[in-house]
Amino acid sequence: MSAIQVSAFRWVPPFAQGLVRDLRVRWALGEAGLDYDERLIGREDQNSEAYRRLQPFGQVPALVEGEQVLFESGAIVLHVAERSRALMPADTDEREQVRTWMFAALNTIEPPIMMLNVIDLQPEADRPAAAKLREGVLKMIEIRLDSLAAFLGAREHLVGDRFSAADLLMTTVLRILRTTDLVARRPVLDAYRQRFEARPAFEQALAAQLRAFAANAPNAPNR
Amino acid sequence: MSAIQVSAFRWVPPFAQGLVRDLRVRWALGEAGLDYDERLIGREDQNSEAYRRLQPFGQVPALVEGEQVLFESGAIVLHVAERSRALMPADTDEREQVRTWMFAALNTIEPPIMMLNVIDLQPEADRPAAAKLREGVLKMIEIRLDSLAAFLGAREHLVGDRFSAADLLMTTVLRILRTTDLVARRPVLDAYRQRFEARPAFEQALAAQLRAFAANAPNAPNR
Repeated sequence: MSAIQVSAFRWVPPFAQGLVRDLRVRWALGEAGLDYDERLIGREDQNSEAYRRLQPFGQVPALVEGEQVLFESGAIVLHVAERSRALMPADTDEREQVRTWMFAALNTIEPPIMMLNVIDLQPEADRPAAAKLREGVLKMIEIRLDSLAAFLGAREHLVGDRFSAADLLMTTVLRILRTTDLVARRPVLDAYRQRFEARPAFEQALAAQLRAFAANAPNAPNR
Repeated sequence: MSAIQVSAFRWVPPFAQGLVRDLRVRWALGEAGLDYDERLIGREDQNSEAYRRLQPFGQVPALVEGEQVLFESGAIVLHVAERSRALMPADTDEREQVRTWMFAALNTIEPPIMMLNVIDLQPEADRPAAAKLREGVLKMIEIRLDSLAAFLGAREHLVGDRFSAADLLMTTVLRILRTTDLVARRPVLDAYRQRFEARPAFEQALAAQLRAFAANAPNAPNR
């Protein structure tokens, strides 16, 4: 048994597979070279008192390490990053920049992207009514992606000349747009995303998340 | 001149007054007893190269302190909090809990609230079409507010028995719902919000933001 336990869903529908937020934590732990055990949960756990003591919103991921319980993927990635040179530079000012970009990924870039997701996940019949709103949200996303692309320019990383927790979170946020061409149409962002998705720790994290879903699919032979 | 400079908008329309994110930073600096100068900006600055060097998205707030430039209200509040016992407990585990709740405020509670805002700020004529989507978003917000209220229960603070940067951010997020009865209908959350809005540093921060807007209103006598 590992010292660290990370909660994740036993199964989610295909549209969410590869995007669930435990991916961020699995990736961060992989970069830091830390082992963990999965604690797979289902709907019945999300509202249980026992799980709510770990994660007050019934969501994933929660991280348990001895007496310590943390939730919120951003907070957990920051926790892991501050203990590992793999995800955080040594320089104090650069560390602050990494944290700034971590918040930018989660509080400036992700919210309008999640809004688009909510609109696009409506039942087919309700989508035409939301077409105008969708256009407005697309515009918001494009403005933010353009600003991000302008900032990056020829840079390979958000902070300094090395991969950090900021790039990790930003990559997972850009991935949410995989059913659109919003990232693909911006070569700077597309190259940025692909560069970090090629990291072995990312590939292992993604495989680990998908492995649980495959094993627990509603039509899996062993279920 | 103060050592710290914080950017804020010269003026915003009434629906946003008292909610703009520099409020969080003004409040945090007030709690920490740190003076700051305002750097008021307008639309013309938001796209200027000079301002984008401080804030790549052209938004507020940005904080400048000597050579250091930070943006993202969450990152700035964390930066201020880690330097002041007024916003952060001394205990290591409690500090992690404060950060966890800071991310929860900005990445779990705020996004659906911002979604509601976007829907409600559409032109009058477009709102009926989005009615069904609005219902779904309201439901998302209610589920999260109920989880938050359940977590708080009889607690006065999110972490330990003292005010922290987590309560500061959560209060500013709950405030965004001021045109709805979503917080008012939940006595635990309403009392929570009011308790912290009664803090002198909050009142001073709010007054400072509103002062700039009053002085620079489109119909102000001195403009």
